[in-house]
Amino acid sequence: MSTPAALTWSTTNCPVGRAMDILGESGTVIVLREIFNGVRRFDLMQRHSGLSRAVLSHRLALLVEHGIVHRVAYRDPGERERHEYRLTTRGFDLQPVMVALADWGGKHLSGPEGPAVEVEHRDCGARTHVALVCEEGHVIDRLRDVRTRPGPGAMPT
Amino acid sequence: MSTPAALTWSTTNCPVGRAMDILGESGTVIVLREIFNGVRRFDLMQRHSGLSRAVLSHRLALLVEHGIVHRVAYRDPGERERHEYRLTTRGFDLQPVMVALADWGGKHLSGPEGPAVEVEHRDCGARTHVALVCEEGHVIDRLRDVRTRPGPGAMPT
Repeated sequence: MSTPAALTWSTTNCPVGRAMDILGESGTVIVLREIFNGVRRFDLMQRHSGLSRAVLSHRLALLVEHGIVHRVAYRDPGERERHEYRLTTRGFDLQPVMVALADWGGKHLSGPEGPAVEVEHRDCGARTHVALVCEEGHVIDRLRDVRTRPGPGAMPT
Repeated sequence: MSTPAALTWSTTNCPVGRAMDILGESGTVIVLREIFNGVRRFDLMQRHSGLSRAVLSHRLALLVEHGIVHRVAYRDPGERERHEYRLTTRGFDLQPVMVALADWGGKHLSGPEGPAVEVEHRDCGARTHVALVCEEGHVIDRLRDVRTRPGPGAMPT
């Protein structure tokens, strides 16, 4: 066995690890799914996702703390002021993560009838997926044609 | 507020939810990161990831159970038989999820020096990212140009 190159750099500041420090908390991605799908109010999110009020509340606070969603006040006629949750730019940048998860779950974990949801391109209505594209403009068909290398922030192990 | 369309379909069989039932277990994505980076042996994974032996062992069992990785026997000279962990096709199909996480973490959670890792296209060496592409061949630049719709397996709420 040749020694894997990855062993030469530290995982301390790994971008995947840092992303999962936030997204790996149980329920966080589910909350994001609701907000991406336009379900922005606490009660609706709670009912649609099935998360407990406590978990939903904690995860929303975590997402606000990390600048992924922000609270916006609204007031329905005759009601007190409430808040809904919207994605920040940083939050919206998670769209490819969500679509990649939907692609994989849809392909590998659906029943025989097919996936429960699809992602569509608003302009043309066609189903949309994630693809790997390099900065030279190549669309990469074979997943084995990419590999990880140390970046400018890499630290030795 | 118009009622979000997503409220008309059940989240019971949501592909993102199903994916997160597996990937949402703390440490699962970290184990996958190691295997994607060629770190396939238990001791090396444990040392490089910093996960405890118990967590690593449980997460590998989970990934095997779900057909995402499989165990392959090997024997170093003079040693007993051991196993390493390799991705199945289903596991390899998580590559876009991993790259999407690396993209987001690299962009939003890195220090001033930049991301610790990059993904490269083996053929040309250029950095590689995920992109949203529809089945009509449009590369979608604006994340707001996609939306979720019920798929063939959708169930009413």
